[in-house]
Amino acid sequence: MHPYLIRYLPILKWGGAYDRTALGNDLIAAVIVTIMLIPQSLAYALLAGLPPEAGLYASIAPIILYAIFGTSRALAVGPVAVVSLMTAAALSNIVEQGTMGYGIAALTLAGLSGVILLGMGLFRLGFVANFLSHPVIAGFITASGIIIAASQLKHILGINAQGHNLWEIVVSLIEHLGETNVITAVIGVLGTVFLFWVRKGLKPLMQRLGAGAGVTGIMVKAGPVAVVVLSTLAVWGFGLADQGVKIVGEVPQSLPPLTLPSLSPGLLGQLLLPAFLISIIGFVESISVAQTLAAKKRQRIDPDQELIGLGAANIGAAFTGGFPVTGGFSRSVVNFDAGAETPAAGAYTAVGLAIAALFLTPLIYFLPKATLAATIIVAVLSLVDFSILKRSWGYSKADFAAVLATILLTLGFGVELGVSSGVGVSILLHLYRSSRPHVAEVGQIPGTEHFRNILRHKVLTDPHIVSLRVDESLYFANARFLEEKIHNRVARDPNIRHVILQCSAINEIDFSALESLETINDRLREMNVQLHLSEVKGPVMDRLEAQHFLDELTGRVFLSQYEAVKALKTPADGVRA
Amino acid sequence: MHPYLIRYLPILKWGGAYDRTALGNDLIAAVIVTIMLIPQSLAYALLAGLPPEAGLYASIAPIILYAIFGTSRALAVGPVAVVSLMTAAALSNIVEQGTMGYGIAALTLAGLSGVILLGMGLFRLGFVANFLSHPVIAGFITASGIIIAASQLKHILGINAQGHNLWEIVVSLIEHLGETNVITAVIGVLGTVFLFWVRKGLKPLMQRLGAGAGVTGIMVKAGPVAVVVLSTLAVWGFGLADQGVKIVGEVPQSLPPLTLPSLSPGLLGQLLLPAFLISIIGFVESISVAQTLAAKKRQRIDPDQELIGLGAANIGAAFTGGFPVTGGFSRSVVNFDAGAETPAAGAYTAVGLAIAALFLTPLIYFLPKATLAATIIVAVLSLVDFSILKRSWGYSKADFAAVLATILLTLGFGVELGVSSGVGVSILLHLYRSSRPHVAEVGQIPGTEHFRNILRHKVLTDPHIVSLRVDESLYFANARFLEEKIHNRVARDPNIRHVILQCSAINEIDFSALESLETINDRLREMNVQLHLSEVKGPVMDRLEAQHFLDELTGRVFLSQYEAVKALKTPADGVRA
Repeated sequence: MHPYLIRYLPILKWGGAYDRTALGNDLIAAVIVTIMLIPQSLAYALLAGLPPEAGLYASIAPIILYAIFGTSRALAVGPVAVVSLMTAAALSNIVEQGTMGYGIAALTLAGLSGVILLGMGLFRLGFVANFLSHPVIAGFITASGIIIAASQLKHILGINAQGHNLWEIVVSLIEHLGETNVITAVIGVLGTVFLFWVRKGLKPLMQRLGAGAGVTGIMVKAGPVAVVVLSTLAVWGFGLADQGVKIVGEVPQSLPPLTLPSLSPGLLGQLLLPAFLISIIGFVESISVAQTLAAKKRQRIDPDQELIGLGAANIGAAFTGGFPVTGGFSRSVVNFDAGAETPAAGAYTAVGLAIAALFLTPLIYFLPKATLAATIIVAVLSLVDFSILKRSWGYSKADFAAVLATILLTLGFGVELGVSSGVGVSILLHLYRSSRPHVAEVGQIPGTEHFRNILRHKVLTDPHIVSLRVDESLYFANARFLEEKIHNRVARDPNIRHVILQCSAINEIDFSALESLETINDRLREMNVQLHLSEVKGPVMDRLEAQHFLDELTGRVFLSQYEAVKALKTPADGVRA
Repeated sequence: MHPYLIRYLPILKWGGAYDRTALGNDLIAAVIVTIMLIPQSLAYALLAGLPPEAGLYASIAPIILYAIFGTSRALAVGPVAVVSLMTAAALSNIVEQGTMGYGIAALTLAGLSGVILLGMGLFRLGFVANFLSHPVIAGFITASGIIIAASQLKHILGINAQGHNLWEIVVSLIEHLGETNVITAVIGVLGTVFLFWVRKGLKPLMQRLGAGAGVTGIMVKAGPVAVVVLSTLAVWGFGLADQGVKIVGEVPQSLPPLTLPSLSPGLLGQLLLPAFLISIIGFVESISVAQTLAAKKRQRIDPDQELIGLGAANIGAAFTGGFPVTGGFSRSVVNFDAGAETPAAGAYTAVGLAIAALFLTPLIYFLPKATLAATIIVAVLSLVDFSILKRSWGYSKADFAAVLATILLTLGFGVELGVSSGVGVSILLHLYRSSRPHVAEVGQIPGTEHFRNILRHKVLTDPHIVSLRVDESLYFANARFLEEKIHNRVARDPNIRHVILQCSAINEIDFSALESLETINDRLREMNVQLHLSEVKGPVMDRLEAQHFLDELTGRVFLSQYEAVKALKTPADGVRA
């Protein structure tokens, strides 16, 4: 087969070697993941502001398309918490929730996000995701978890409330607190407490009872399913829907419908930035899960092909009544732990979910929304982790500032502004740091050819020579800094006749820095001072030689700092501490 | 005196030593600069879309305030071409030209820009200007020059036309071409041709006639004044205003009025981004002129104090009927060449312009606008310099891309989008380059303790050891790249038991990179491979030691790469080309 075909269609690689063992393992994993995904899909649709069936639809076609184009063996693609929140935030600025237009906007957002991911994959632009620093991601996920949990409290209490940042949500909750439906609140609170207990208390209990790890694992995973079943039965048996408990209600029994995203330029324009942010956040979440799981089996992940896989999945979601999807952490881990060997496990999961969509939806008619909210709250609170603040504070104040800014801005102004500002702050802090590089004035260590910082070592210097070592590549953000540093150093001391730049740590000189060096050379000439370079690296020298700079240079280029000082020094050497 | 007082009020430093010689030199320079500034100020007011007297007002208070707070001895502050264009672009999106609101918006823009500059100076944020790379500035100035020249063609032809990018202006000019006023066009074209000839042809002619350099210099500088006088006399003498030649008309005889900028939050919000861009561009232009002139006399410029000086100047403009100002190139050079010794020369120039505003304005009643347009066109076309394209192409394709993007976006979409995109492109290209650092797999040069790239040298390697040298500090933009690089290298080769990272070129590891190293360590552990570090720099080691990373590290930290390989290598060494 043509290598390009294999690169762009990873299914051709594992599909050929597919055997009965793999089939058996994949089928078992698929059954477990399907059971887990049914309540999760419904819940994330609710979080995204969509009808529950959209969650099932968003898990079917995307999972199959990812199986064809993706490179991870265990990644499970579908709706995830943070992306669902971002979807809700993007759409409710534009269309009203519950309207026809809202669903179409969700499809369109998925389609646009798919096209962006696909484009980034084809043009190999995956590096864009690198601009999200770890502190920004950690801060963003934590703040998103809090916003999601807060946004679900309205379902727990059975009231109407809204908002896209913590402040709006809390104010809205307080305003509507009087409308609390007591029965709903009882279901919601009991569900939440039970699910927390399943996570934290069930495992130790089972172990004390002497149960095996396998049974315990299944019990823990079955927790959400149990709450769904019990609360549905309770609402049905006691007729609680008539008491004002909000239920999922009628869900169409259908395979995913064929849907068409909107091509309205106005809508596309409004959705472009959110789609971009969703793509990047989704990609980062997905790739880190995929790489963690691949490492356990020494498998390779191709980030650019992953973009193509996620792009195809989102385009699939757009045409089958879904909304933006990505590789989820919890579902992928369950899939991996359940023994999934190939992406085919995902395809079987899709079949399971399709069966659920066709036949099981009447069973969830009486499922209370409060139960879904409880599963969301318990899931997202595990994402909240303020320890990043402490850890980054101990390591670097700049990283701490980036985390704090991201958390506060996300909580205060919503997800889109939060993550954009986080990226901006990281980049600015990085540029700020590299815009003030460490510049050491160096002198010769007596009896050696070594030159060290005059502030830290006893070194020999010459009153007519200033030797400066710059510990950073020169580029636009620090070019002017160097200009000022040299200008001010020389203007201070009328004895100076030579400035030597020791270039041993300079890996690159960009065009701005080249022009700055020309300016420095010109200004030093005005002051009757020569500029010399020493220890210029090969590739840097190659570039400089192609320019006029070396012809204009008032001084010389020396192979070593030692040779430079030897050639330039005056007979009577000064000694400085 | 308190040192803070001297730092924030540089006038105290030179004011004390002011003597008769300095006074004489400053007065002579002031007379020359005043004569040059009268037509220039009127012209730039026209360019900014304001009545001509605003140009005079904008040159009076700002020049005095800069003299008090600024650190350059020769800088002349006032309206300049690019900032006037940016003012026009910012304001005409918001208010209609010629209305009362337009003038107030101009004051407000100056005030806001002044506050931004002052704030940046007090908080020592001058480094923000470093984000404008040289290629971006060069491209922006060239494109602005073209837009300014094109925008003045309407005055040369006596027609109405408008637009904020080259395309709009050209289309509008063509649409209105039929309305050309022939007499205006004759004045405009003659004026332009004459001024070009003064710049290019007068000097050689004078030299051939045997005139001295001094006389020649004065003649060249007097060119614009001559055109102003001659065209005014022509319009007056032949009654050309009745033939449709547009003239400056009545200009109030007054000192600068006391004006109040608007405090409307809506207007301030709309002007914030333009004010920020104007501040940055103005600062960059001003500081480079100031430093060039200071270098000629070994004087120092304090960039943060310069921000305060320019901030005060702009706030002054806001309260005296002006518009945004900065240190101009041509006027500062004239001031310097004319022998100005201290900022007092600027104050005397202000007095000269105040006298002009009080007594001379009736004389310019008949001055045709076409003449002012001609002086603008000739001045700005000297800014247009496409050689930057060729020079940057020869040096680096990334820098070339930044120039080209800035020129095309400025011409195509106007100054604000042009310069913002230029900055964005520069930063992205820089991050892109440093996000894919050079990572060399190294081996030992036989018989030495040196390790070199296995692709370039004949070196010894061990089948169980991979040694990688990263030639860049590790930070968020390249952290994931390293994760992938190591993961893929190890996943490819099941023999590997040890990965050694040679850290000799790593000046910094930020928090993201630390977490990536933890991830790399965890994933290698899953693959049963140990991670080791060698040649970690002191400050980097200090930070790592404060964290848990070194406790978690599966391998060890070695002082040198040689020691690492010696400790880890298996008895039977392999040799690789």
